[in-house]
Amino acid sequence: MAATPAWPPDSTPRLFVETPLSDAAAVAIDGGQAHYLAGVMRLKVGDPVLLFDDKTGEWLAEASEVRKRDLTLTVAHRMREREAVPDLWLCAAPIKKGRIDWVAEKACELGVDRLVPVLTQRTIVDRPNLDRLRAHMIEAAEQCGRTALPSLAEPVKLAALLADWPAERALFFADESGGVPAAEAMRARPGPAAILVGPEGGFTPAEREVIRACPAAVGITLGPRILRAETAAAAATAVWMAAAGDW
Amino acid sequence: MAATPAWPPDSTPRLFVETPLSDAAAVAIDGGQAHYLAGVMRLKVGDPVLLFDDKTGEWLAEASEVRKRDLTLTVAHRMREREAVPDLWLCAAPIKKGRIDWVAEKACELGVDRLVPVLTQRTIVDRPNLDRLRAHMIEAAEQCGRTALPSLAEPVKLAALLADWPAERALFFADESGGVPAAEAMRARPGPAAILVGPEGGFTPAEREVIRACPAAVGITLGPRILRAETAAAAATAVWMAAAGDW
Repeated sequence: MAATPAWPPDSTPRLFVETPLSDAAAVAIDGGQAHYLAGVMRLKVGDPVLLFDDKTGEWLAEASEVRKRDLTLTVAHRMREREAVPDLWLCAAPIKKGRIDWVAEKACELGVDRLVPVLTQRTIVDRPNLDRLRAHMIEAAEQCGRTALPSLAEPVKLAALLADWPAERALFFADESGGVPAAEAMRARPGPAAILVGPEGGFTPAEREVIRACPAAVGITLGPRILRAETAAAAATAVWMAAAGDW
Repeated sequence: MAATPAWPPDSTPRLFVETPLSDAAAVAIDGGQAHYLAGVMRLKVGDPVLLFDDKTGEWLAEASEVRKRDLTLTVAHRMREREAVPDLWLCAAPIKKGRIDWVAEKACELGVDRLVPVLTQRTIVDRPNLDRLRAHMIEAAEQCGRTALPSLAEPVKLAALLADWPAERALFFADESGGVPAAEAMRARPGPAAILVGPEGGFTPAEREVIRACPAAVGITLGPRILRAETAAAAATAVWMAAAGDW
């Protein structure tokens, strides 16, 4: 007897939609998503699509109408509830386009719950394009299977971030001047956490003093090599996920 | 009394050169490196430059002649011996340009000793551009302070890689079908190691069987989200460095 093929197949397109989803809901798709489904994926009536809305989880839907510029998908049933994401914030100084987009993409894939752009003295990008960062996180969520998008905070100055820092949230900051080995520090301090990474050029000595003065702050080291800002962000996030997250 | 300023200053350019370095050696610089030093960094006679050759460590040199298209640097003295790099290989299936370049850059920054392009059934890039990958690793080494470049192996088919796998080298492979949590598996198996990451689309079930049959193989998991190939490579490398490397 042949094994029943998995349904929906692995090749099923998976999309984030703003519309809240529910049983039998009709979801209108247009713009880039319509081009992707109709033009690129050659979706036909009856073909499956996985949808998630960042609120109600992941749902299986079927194409009920397919046109070149717009489609209608009809929701069949819920596949998964919205997941619980590990309670990790990534507080990162904006860096140049491309590298900061990559931070947003990797933060989502690696499982970060919240991305906070932090403005520091050596930050050269004062106004990160939040729409673009969010688009990168959505694409990463569609690809990595997340049903919950990372939240994206408004850019905040370092002093303001630290001024009302929640005491119960560990603040692991990549300290170029040396600190506790990252994995050791993170295993020793489970629970809500945040990773703070400076811009290219790092924090100023004065900024490091202000960070260290924060009771929740724990200086960590990521080894003897000088990591680029985006590498430090991804590496510290991976180490936290392995030490205190859901890996 | 004013503190003596650090010498050489943090802004000192740092370059890899093919010429073996020694005391008082005169090093001729041309091409892109000359443009960078003379045109971009506006180097003047007497200005310091840090050089490393992947053989003898890092040396302080001074510009003794500066022209637009070529310079002569004179080596003053050795700053550091060539470092010992953690004994980690990264065996990664080539993926599309941009993402594979990024793997080479991050592998160098994170401290990998050897990068091995592995050809698998779902690998879509059969001939990765090794010169381009090496250029990305050199640039990363200049930036992150390495005095030893990662070695870059010729692309090898998965079966051939496993056929003569050194028994004493742990082979941690990212197993989409589930495995031991990465940090736990890596702490339990210190010593020479390798990380094996598949292409987009992962290993085939048949390939996973062949890998598992390798006595040194340990299937690891990097959490519940589906990581892109390059994300898995960087994340597994960071977790290994924290668990068994020099972090």
